[in-house]
Amino acid sequence: MAVNLDDLKQLRKATGAGMLDCKKALEESDGDMQKAITILREKGIKVASKKASRDADEGLIVSYIHPPGKLGVLVEINCETDFVARTEDFQKFAKHVAMHIAAYPPSVVSRENLSEEAIEAERKVLLSQLEDSGKPASIIEKIIDGRMEKFYSESCLLDQEWSDDPDVGTVKDALTDLIGKLRENIVINRFARFSIGN
Amino acid sequence: MAVNLDDLKQLRKATGAGMLDCKKALEESDGDMQKAITILREKGIKVASKKASRDADEGLIVSYIHPPGKLGVLVEINCETDFVARTEDFQKFAKHVAMHIAAYPPSVVSRENLSEEAIEAERKVLLSQLEDSGKPASIIEKIIDGRMEKFYSESCLLDQEWSDDPDVGTVKDALTDLIGKLRENIVINRFARFSIGN
Repeated sequence: MAVNLDDLKQLRKATGAGMLDCKKALEESDGDMQKAITILREKGIKVASKKASRDADEGLIVSYIHPPGKLGVLVEINCETDFVARTEDFQKFAKHVAMHIAAYPPSVVSRENLSEEAIEAERKVLLSQLEDSGKPASIIEKIIDGRMEKFYSESCLLDQEWSDDPDVGTVKDALTDLIGKLRENIVINRFARFSIGN
Repeated sequence: MAVNLDDLKQLRKATGAGMLDCKKALEESDGDMQKAITILREKGIKVASKKASRDADEGLIVSYIHPPGKLGVLVEINCETDFVARTEDFQKFAKHVAMHIAAYPPSVVSRENLSEEAIEAERKVLLSQLEDSGKPASIIEKIIDGRMEKFYSESCLLDQEWSDDPDVGTVKDALTDLIGKLRENIVINRFARFSIGN
């Protein structure tokens, strides 16, 4: 059966499980949401949040040099064991992250890495665009909140759309999928992106 | 004939030319220093300082991942034209620099990249080791200057011994050799070095 997209979104939101796992669960439950949640729970897929507190001090350093060598990325992705670091899934993901960063340069890995000043500066710019609009302050505040989400989705790697497969959602969603699959805490720790002349 | 090592050092100091060029010049002049200098001048090898002011906004981004992927380096090396960036000499040098940084981690590219605070902090540590020595202040100052050179030769890439061939001298010497050979200003601009767990 075809899976209802809204159900899929709701299921992801409710369980934090990966896209593919949710899809399979909904197929298995014939679209029954409660049953799908149970299936996911039984499968132990709701792991991402549980794993998040576990030490991730293994992993891989991966690079991507975009031919002919005017642009390059170095990225560190951590997991809990060298066993997982050696899996094809992990290595493939790491490589894709490096290529993603090359193509869609973020400024930081996650929102938490943005400085207070950077966030304040962005809000000020947005405010200056709106303050003569005649709209009430509470509305302006809401509009700015919305536009800040856009700002995050451009400048924070985890909030960016996952370029390898936009259907997955964000980079964070792709990461969640991987955590669900490999059952370890996985963290994109840091990256460097150099291009000639920048 | 065998080249006298002291002559070689003196010639390099006098001309700023590369190791190999100096050696060849001394061989050609049968060890005559003045003649060797003239030979080098005629060959136009004393180029490094002349080139230094020219724009280097081309180049390469090169990476080195040390197997099995727990350590990686990304480095940007600039030159003046894409033509030089594509030469085997340039690419080989860039690759060696990346491998060198992996093996002998510097903190910065050159002394100029060290903060005043880092230099002051180091001098203070050295001073605290010497202030009870009973030596006069002027002597202590000289000892500290000497030890600072050692500090630079460990923490600044350009002051480190060139690991690909210690006979060449420092990384800066190897760079000078390359500039003499390729006749363009060449700059090691920046690097990132990630290792798992650091």
